[in-house]
Amino acid sequence: MSDAASAWDRMANRSPAVLFIDECLRGAGQVIFQNSPLTGLFFLLGIWWGAAVAGQIEVAVGATIATMIATATAIVLRSNQESLREGLFGFNGILVGAAVPTFLGNNWAMWLLLILGAAIVTVVFLAVSNVMKTWGLSAMTFPFVLTTWFLMLSAYQFQHLHITTLAAPAFAHQGTFPALKGSAMDYIEALFKGPAQVFLINNAVSGVLVVIGLLLNSWYAAVFALVGSAVAIITAIIFGADPHSVFNGLYGFSPVLTAVGLGCVFLTPSWRVTLYALLGIVFTVIVQAALDAGLSPLGIPTFTGPFNFATWLFLLPRVNLRPEPHTQIRGGIVGEHHEHPVTQNRPAL
Amino acid sequence: MSDAASAWDRMANRSPAVLFIDECLRGAGQVIFQNSPLTGLFFLLGIWWGAAVAGQIEVAVGATIATMIATATAIVLRSNQESLREGLFGFNGILVGAAVPTFLGNNWAMWLLLILGAAIVTVVFLAVSNVMKTWGLSAMTFPFVLTTWFLMLSAYQFQHLHITTLAAPAFAHQGTFPALKGSAMDYIEALFKGPAQVFLINNAVSGVLVVIGLLLNSWYAAVFALVGSAVAIITAIIFGADPHSVFNGLYGFSPVLTAVGLGCVFLTPSWRVTLYALLGIVFTVIVQAALDAGLSPLGIPTFTGPFNFATWLFLLPRVNLRPEPHTQIRGGIVGEHHEHPVTQNRPAL
Amino acid sequence: MSDAASAWDRMANRSPAVLFIDECLRGAGQVIFQNSPLTGLFFLLGIWWGAAVAGQIEVAVGATIATMIATATAIVLRSNQESLREGLFGFNGILVGAAVPTFLGNNWAMWLLLILGAAIVTVVFLAVSNVMKTWGLSAMTFPFVLTTWFLMLSAYQFQHLHITTLAAPAFAHQGTFPALKGSAMDYIEALFKGPAQVFLINNAVSGVLVVIGLLLNSWYAAVFALVGSAVAIITAIIFGADPHSVFNGLYGFSPVLTAVGLGCVFLTPSWRVTLYALLGIVFTVIVQAALDAGLSPLGIPTFTGPFNFATWLFLLPRVNLRPEPHTQIRGGIVGEHHEHPVTQNRPAL
Repeated sequence: MSDAASAWDRMANRSPAVLFIDECLRGAGQVIFQNSPLTGLFFLLGIWWGAAVAGQIEVAVGATIATMIATATAIVLRSNQESLREGLFGFNGILVGAAVPTFLGNNWAMWLLLILGAAIVTVVFLAVSNVMKTWGLSAMTFPFVLTTWFLMLSAYQFQHLHITTLAAPAFAHQGTFPALKGSAMDYIEALFKGPAQVFLINNAVSGVLVVIGLLLNSWYAAVFALVGSAVAIITAIIFGADPHSVFNGLYGFSPVLTAVGLGCVFLTPSWRVTLYALLGIVFTVIVQAALDAGLSPLGIPTFTGPFNFATWLFLLPRVNLRPEPHTQIRGGIVGEHHEHPVTQNRPAL
Repeated sequence: MSDAASAWDRMANRSPAVLFIDECLRGAGQVIFQNSPLTGLFFLLGIWWGAAVAGQIEVAVGATIATMIATATAIVLRSNQESLREGLFGFNGILVGAAVPTFLGNNWAMWLLLILGAAIVTVVFLAVSNVMKTWGLSAMTFPFVLTTWFLMLSAYQFQHLHITTLAAPAFAHQGTFPALKGSAMDYIEALFKGPAQVFLINNAVSGVLVVIGLLLNSWYAAVFALVGSAVAIITAIIFGADPHSVFNGLYGFSPVLTAVGLGCVFLTPSWRVTLYALLGIVFTVIVQAALDAGLSPLGIPTFTGPFNFATWLFLLPRVNLRPEPHTQIRGGIVGEHHEHPVTQNRPAL
Repeated sequence: MSDAASAWDRMANRSPAVLFIDECLRGAGQVIFQNSPLTGLFFLLGIWWGAAVAGQIEVAVGATIATMIATATAIVLRSNQESLREGLFGFNGILVGAAVPTFLGNNWAMWLLLILGAAIVTVVFLAVSNVMKTWGLSAMTFPFVLTTWFLMLSAYQFQHLHITTLAAPAFAHQGTFPALKGSAMDYIEALFKGPAQVFLINNAVSGVLVVIGLLLNSWYAAVFALVGSAVAIITAIIFGADPHSVFNGLYGFSPVLTAVGLGCVFLTPSWRVTLYALLGIVFTVIVQAALDAGLSPLGIPTFTGPFNFATWLFLLPRVNLRPEPHTQIRGGIVGEHHEHPVTQNRPAL
């Protein structure tokens, strides 16, 4: 640990205000699984840069405020201290705070919804964590996805909320897209827009800041993030996705998270795991396209749903698990207290 | 316990017929979590009054018959006696029985569907109970919601069933509603229509009967029901919901259930719990608006889905839970028998 | 066991190639819960016959290749040997391989998607198995359903995939169908098209081959398959379903699986279980109609989803389960390590 980091930690241990800032910065960092305030600071810088360039400063303000509200809600609820200290209560809040002003008009009702959403997402995070822990899984960003789906859909029924950039609800139809024409620079921008779009920011410089943030905490994470973005671009092009979406990083943000999650956070890095993660990345691109079509009649974005579904499905297998065979259930519909999965110990992957 | 109640209990213990009636009345009462035959009787009176006034007596007949079929199915399946005695096998049936004739035309096919639905909902109740028990949760009214969604959707494909009052499937669109103009009486009616709409009845007198039924068993429940209805009206108005829906109690029925469930049934009443329940009520209103928009392309109502989702999400948090951190899963994709949530004992909320 | 079967088993134990073929054939058989290579061979014959007659040989080729890829993926992942030996890793793959060429045009992108889907479905099978094992349930064909929903929906966004026979996304509307006019032969064909449509084959001779395959391993399974198909036809006609769908076995394929699953695979055959299975079959028909309407805006088929949902719901009840009563949760939102379902031992159904 560097001297500056040690000094920061000592300050956090002495001052509740610094501790709170530390927890919020780690919360930003945990969006891509990094328990580091410096990484979180770079992620926030990426958001502020992208929002400022796009003339949507409310997105950066919303993200910052929502991180604080989500973290504060966890404190008020007297949640697990260790998890608070790791920033686990901030990373869903920051995404709610970035999403709400991105899709709804900037007025008092939007801010009220954002504040409520940031408090509620902490409750939803604890709820989803409790459910997923049954299978040894993290809640990841699904609490953000679920909560924000509710917030966006509710805007259709609440006239004081103004939908600005949600696509109008429509049936999916077989797409026909313009020919793929991109310069080398377009591809490089797309590569970095993937990590930026994790935070709903369409800006390559923001993506560079995000990758630098990752690099400062974990080489593995930075490499897997770029691998995820690159493989997603290639997969989307092979199957003939809309070039406009590809170049704006819209096929890349979920695979970036899948790549880091499978490649080096939840599984131990190895060649075998890397191949497994590659299949997971390709699957995430398919799920991204599927949810884009599937949510089209509702007029809401997928957010990072494709990452959550694909990564959960790729972490749930236990290859030494004996699936329930097609034989009679003990006790039939009367029931018997079933036992938990009998697993055999085998050499680890 | 009053003398009349004691006498009734003695009769129930002697006569199987009285016992069955007792179980059905408690089943009606359990819709709002009350294990009391007298409360259930008032709820049924509310349904009969509202159905009679609306000229839809088949709704009351359906609700009554379905309670009996659902309870009888549980007996035939030899379900847990203690739960039967508390009316836990009737409260989903009564709602199926009220919903089917509300939305489908009165003919033999509707009654056949109602009878099948009332038997099936008991199976679904046992199924959902088994799943939710994993996290210490009750099935609540979700078995009714799930089963009735299937029944309603099936009507689109079965020409002997006639859809009467389902909204035609359509895309959600940003609503613009008339100005909010309501007399004091309109607000008072709306306050009581919330509890009435729990039973799909649009009648303030029925709501008064429901609240009296609650009062007779639990002051807390009656107060929280009215608080839930009032807070829902205020929240819906603040965000600019359709006044027509607000005044008909359509934003109130799910929050009424959330309020009673969080405020005094599943959590121990306190100021802290009350504040938590208030956030839950507001969230239920948001989920109500969201599901109204989200189910719009399917042309089916939300039923009490918003209550189920919001209340489950607000009961699932265990603040002493250590969420899965973003670290490597033991055993990776090979798997290891994971242990259950390690919880630390802390003072109760 | 016949001499031929014994000889085959000896060969499988000696030769890895024969063992792999054996696992793939059993994989085909496990679609209807049969752990028998001979049964699987008849199912494959049914697919090849039906595909050849329909001039869609790519469906049979796809089904065969996908069974091998799904099984090989399980081997590469070093999955549980015993389950591999029973063919549990092939039965979802074969269905993915039959579905993809049925609904997408025959080009290189379709085959790439099919190969990826067949590998991914093994991961999804392990994932769903891990989740459902919590309640003592098998994953059944849901991994196929979920994976193929993703594959089909993604085709809307990928222009190199060509949607051929998916129904265009549309709102459900109350159907009015032509009068039911069918000869005795039409009804007999419909009876056998149910089992054939399990494999997405619209051909009565294929259905006969499927039933013969069942007969060779289990009289019970063959009888329940035909009972499921017959009861489904009757139920659909009573409620007024589209005769065209009924005569093409489209109301029968899920009930066939429900009937075999509930009637003789997961529950011990008895009169009581048979009555329970009959209610489950009727429910499956209702769910089939409901999902047909519910998926209509997405333009994707239900596949065997109705079977999965209905059968899970009918296997989940534990009648000796004490559902969570409507009382205070120990520890409230602070939480306490809840215990697992306390079940009482009662005489088996």
